[in-house]
Amino acid sequence: MKTKQIFKGRVVTLNLETVTLPNGATVELEVIHHPGAAAVVPMKENGTVVLIRQYRHAVGGYIYEIPAGKLHPGEDPRDCAMRELEEEVGYRATSLELVTTFFTTPGFTDEVIHIYKGTGLTPGTQKLGGDEVLDIVEILLEKAIDQIQDGTIRDGKTIVGLQSVYLRDRSG
Amino acid sequence: MKTKQIFKGRVVTLNLETVTLPNGATVELEVIHHPGAAAVVPMKENGTVVLIRQYRHAVGGYIYEIPAGKLHPGEDPRDCAMRELEEEVGYRATSLELVTTFFTTPGFTDEVIHIYKGTGLTPGTQKLGGDEVLDIVEILLEKAIDQIQDGTIRDGKTIVGLQSVYLRDRSG
Repeated sequence: MKTKQIFKGRVVTLNLETVTLPNGATVELEVIHHPGAAAVVPMKENGTVVLIRQYRHAVGGYIYEIPAGKLHPGEDPRDCAMRELEEEVGYRATSLELVTTFFTTPGFTDEVIHIYKGTGLTPGTQKLGGDEVLDIVEILLEKAIDQIQDGTIRDGKTIVGLQSVYLRDRSG
Repeated sequence: MKTKQIFKGRVVTLNLETVTLPNGATVELEVIHHPGAAAVVPMKENGTVVLIRQYRHAVGGYIYEIPAGKLHPGEDPRDCAMRELEEEVGYRATSLELVTTFFTTPGFTDEVIHIYKGTGLTPGTQKLGGDEVLDIVEILLEKAIDQIQDGTIRDGKTIVGLQSVYLRDRSG
């Protein structure tokens, strides 16, 4: 494989990578390398999930999300999930259970997101970064599932996390 | 907003965009612009879904996916979905029903994927590009849902599509 680095930023690295595929073809691919991220589906005992409504410049406005953040170098995804949960929504979780680890969009990036179900929530201290603009929204998980179907919730990791927790809880 | 284009490739465009957030902070963001994509959950009448096992260099190997492809400039996502369904798995769909339109990873890209449920499948003509390396895998939707939980299926759009179709069909 031949790699030409085009850009290395604070979040993404863009390479042109010349690779030979299993069918023998040699192609040049645009690949975005990303440190990965962790996210939490924070569940209260009454079936309520804690979401955020966050401003996202890349998609032009506010969207609903589960709390999440990028991994620091060498960081355990579980520690990242716990940190982001407290900093973004002001809760700590007594238990974090891994729900899934998935590729966000493997056609052009290696980004993975580790999603945890957080339970046993206790009050912590919200601490937003200067570039984080968000409100907290608490709704019943069943209602959030409906809001995926009606197009209100449109963020990939949030859909994966909410639907996975909902299906697990129903089948378990 | 001030935009500095770093790279414009065949698939992605990378910009540095200096924006003022709703909280008044001015930040420089790394933004990947992408043309968007369409995907299909192809369902047979017996409850089987048609997946592909595709080689993806960015994530280092083969992963399970629903058929999908990038939008051509100005293309209707429905036309794209129909084209990719036939080219990748060799089926045509009598009906394409929009399941969801979602953001793959809105922290750094504007990519959206439109996912359709395809039914009334009839044989068409598979026509793979030279850079497409894939096998077809047909399994029961219920089994695919289990394979999300056990970590066999790890692609974001595929998880979103399969779970959404499963939940819709169950809720009536």
